[in-house]
Amino acid sequence: MITAQAVVYSEHGEPKDVLRTHTYEIDDDKIAANQIIVKTLGSPVNPSDINQIQGVYPSKPDKTTELGTSEPSAPCGNEGLFEIIKVGSNVSNFKVGDWAVPSNVNFGTWRTHALATEDQFTRLPNPEQSKAAGKPSGLTINQGATILVNPMTAYLMLTHYVQLIPGKDWFIQNGGNSAVGKYAIQISKLLGFNSISVVRDRPNLNELESELKGLGATQVITEEQNGSREFGPTIKNWVKETGGEIKLALNCVGGKNSTGVARKLANNGLMLTYGGMSFQPVILPTSLHIFKNITSAGFWITALLKNDEELKNKTLSKIVEWYENEQLVDAKSLETPFVAGGAKQLHEYYQEAVVNSAKGKQLITY
Amino acid sequence: MITAQAVVYSEHGEPKDVLRTHTYEIDDDKIAANQIIVKTLGSPVNPSDINQIQGVYPSKPDKTTELGTSEPSAPCGNEGLFEIIKVGSNVSNFKVGDWAVPSNVNFGTWRTHALATEDQFTRLPNPEQSKAAGKPSGLTINQGATILVNPMTAYLMLTHYVQLIPGKDWFIQNGGNSAVGKYAIQISKLLGFNSISVVRDRPNLNELESELKGLGATQVITEEQNGSREFGPTIKNWVKETGGEIKLALNCVGGKNSTGVARKLANNGLMLTYGGMSFQPVILPTSLHIFKNITSAGFWITALLKNDEELKNKTLSKIVEWYENEQLVDAKSLETPFVAGGAKQLHEYYQEAVVNSAKGKQLITY
Repeated sequence: MITAQAVVYSEHGEPKDVLRTHTYEIDDDKIAANQIIVKTLGSPVNPSDINQIQGVYPSKPDKTTELGTSEPSAPCGNEGLFEIIKVGSNVSNFKVGDWAVPSNVNFGTWRTHALATEDQFTRLPNPEQSKAAGKPSGLTINQGATILVNPMTAYLMLTHYVQLIPGKDWFIQNGGNSAVGKYAIQISKLLGFNSISVVRDRPNLNELESELKGLGATQVITEEQNGSREFGPTIKNWVKETGGEIKLALNCVGGKNSTGVARKLANNGLMLTYGGMSFQPVILPTSLHIFKNITSAGFWITALLKNDEELKNKTLSKIVEWYENEQLVDAKSLETPFVAGGAKQLHEYYQEAVVNSAKGKQLITY
Repeated sequence: MITAQAVVYSEHGEPKDVLRTHTYEIDDDKIAANQIIVKTLGSPVNPSDINQIQGVYPSKPDKTTELGTSEPSAPCGNEGLFEIIKVGSNVSNFKVGDWAVPSNVNFGTWRTHALATEDQFTRLPNPEQSKAAGKPSGLTINQGATILVNPMTAYLMLTHYVQLIPGKDWFIQNGGNSAVGKYAIQISKLLGFNSISVVRDRPNLNELESELKGLGATQVITEEQNGSREFGPTIKNWVKETGGEIKLALNCVGGKNSTGVARKLANNGLMLTYGGMSFQPVILPTSLHIFKNITSAGFWITALLKNDEELKNKTLSKIVEWYENEQLVDAKSLETPFVAGGAKQLHEYYQEAVVNSAKGKQLITY
């Protein structure tokens, strides 16, 4: 018998108000033929997890009594890394010791253990398996626990919509210093694409520029330069030198910043919006639409991958391969180990992590 | 020998400053085998014609000395209806008396006559030919002279991008009272699509609503209703009753008006922007892009048809057919007949027409 804990809510609201720890038993002697038991290695706090709890996110888990709660409840969290600790008699995709991530969103990853069917999880190589396969490196817990959203978002935006020609074409992005931004820089470098990353001006701008160029950024510019007509010819020259075009813009900021990156696009270019950090809408001059045939579209990994298992698995494999080959550096998280039986309950770890998210991405490890 | 006149400019500027009438001879006894001579029946003033003269339009004619001007000049005007008055020995597409429109933009339609090659024109049936073919009606000069931009824009936006299901699906448009808007209302009715047209509130709103519904509008709403959250459920009910979706939005206004029509779109909907009457940019909330997968794109008939002869001819035939069958009502123009040899020179007719464009579309007839 395994004593499991899960962070759940029954009513939407602020995490500090509505989260609680639900403790329940998983009978590991009585699992069905297609079931597995997993224990959690780590699960992060994403902005979308918080919005789900608040009830303002369009995708959310159903509230049920499946975990034995007295009132219908939903488990929190969407990303996480798990280790298989028990498999049913008919399970073919997993063996004990394998690592796995949830196959779909809304599984509920803020928990110590889970009883699931094997189709609810997708296998990742654990470090021993990577080593046995001759890979330079195995996945870290942070890499596995944060693999489903940010690196896959960056990869899919760069590859799924517009065909950039390696060595020639460019993309431009704002939020160049965000987690997705840094993955986009690295992945574009791996794929041979040139990049322009827009970042906020700051006292240590040179330092940030060095960091991003170290990751593979071709060019780093400030928001002021992005908004300046005078700076336009500089960008035109960079692009001219490679003989390509800026065919893709990635926008996670909105407002005039989105206008600025859209203006850099070549005729027929595409801007993909995947976030709105400024809380301003996307703003597009009419002439960009009509005379440059610029298209503005959205990117939401949940919707894109919902019914495309093949694309999801292909993308996941690619990211795993780059991690194993040490070609991709993960965005670091601030890690807090959960101490079972300690003074703090599980939901308090995540409540604190929500508060601390302002300082950087939070990961609870087990 | 034909004495021809054309309105030309050598320098960009305001029409009142830079237009002049160039008079030259066309030797109708010496035309090449593939050439035709046309005389103009009518040519309108479009906003894009004015912007070309001002030098602020992305597509414009080259300045040449082809017409015998002392300095390189460009002829004005893009739309117009012509009658063939002479054909070269090898011309197969035209005979004398046929009607025709320029095959491409930038031909220069503000003129009395033109010498051209036959591939520079596309044949339209003249009224006798329509009658002989048993059609209820022949084209009027206004219909022929204004056929290339507005009705074709409306038809292509409704059919080329999104497949609307007749009897079920909807489109929404702002500028419902514009020329394109009225064509879109009529054409959507002919194709069986439901429409919501947004118009400015006005004292005689009922009158306008009756007019648009007379043309085939399903629903007419005001800008205030378009911007109101309270009005949303009314629209949802209309759409629910037909069992379809609002899959397409047509925007020629911009600003918050564009936000309003984009908000009405179903998931995966498309907004096409073909104008910006408010001089405000297109404004799209981030969440529409990400969570509703709304795409915002531009429509420019010049670019769309530039390399697609087949689409152009197919579209033109469809509009002609509807006019001949009296199924489509043209947007009326304010017509001014040119008096050859009178007190006013040809360019003065167009200069006055530019000024009078504020009162409605201007057509100079010959």
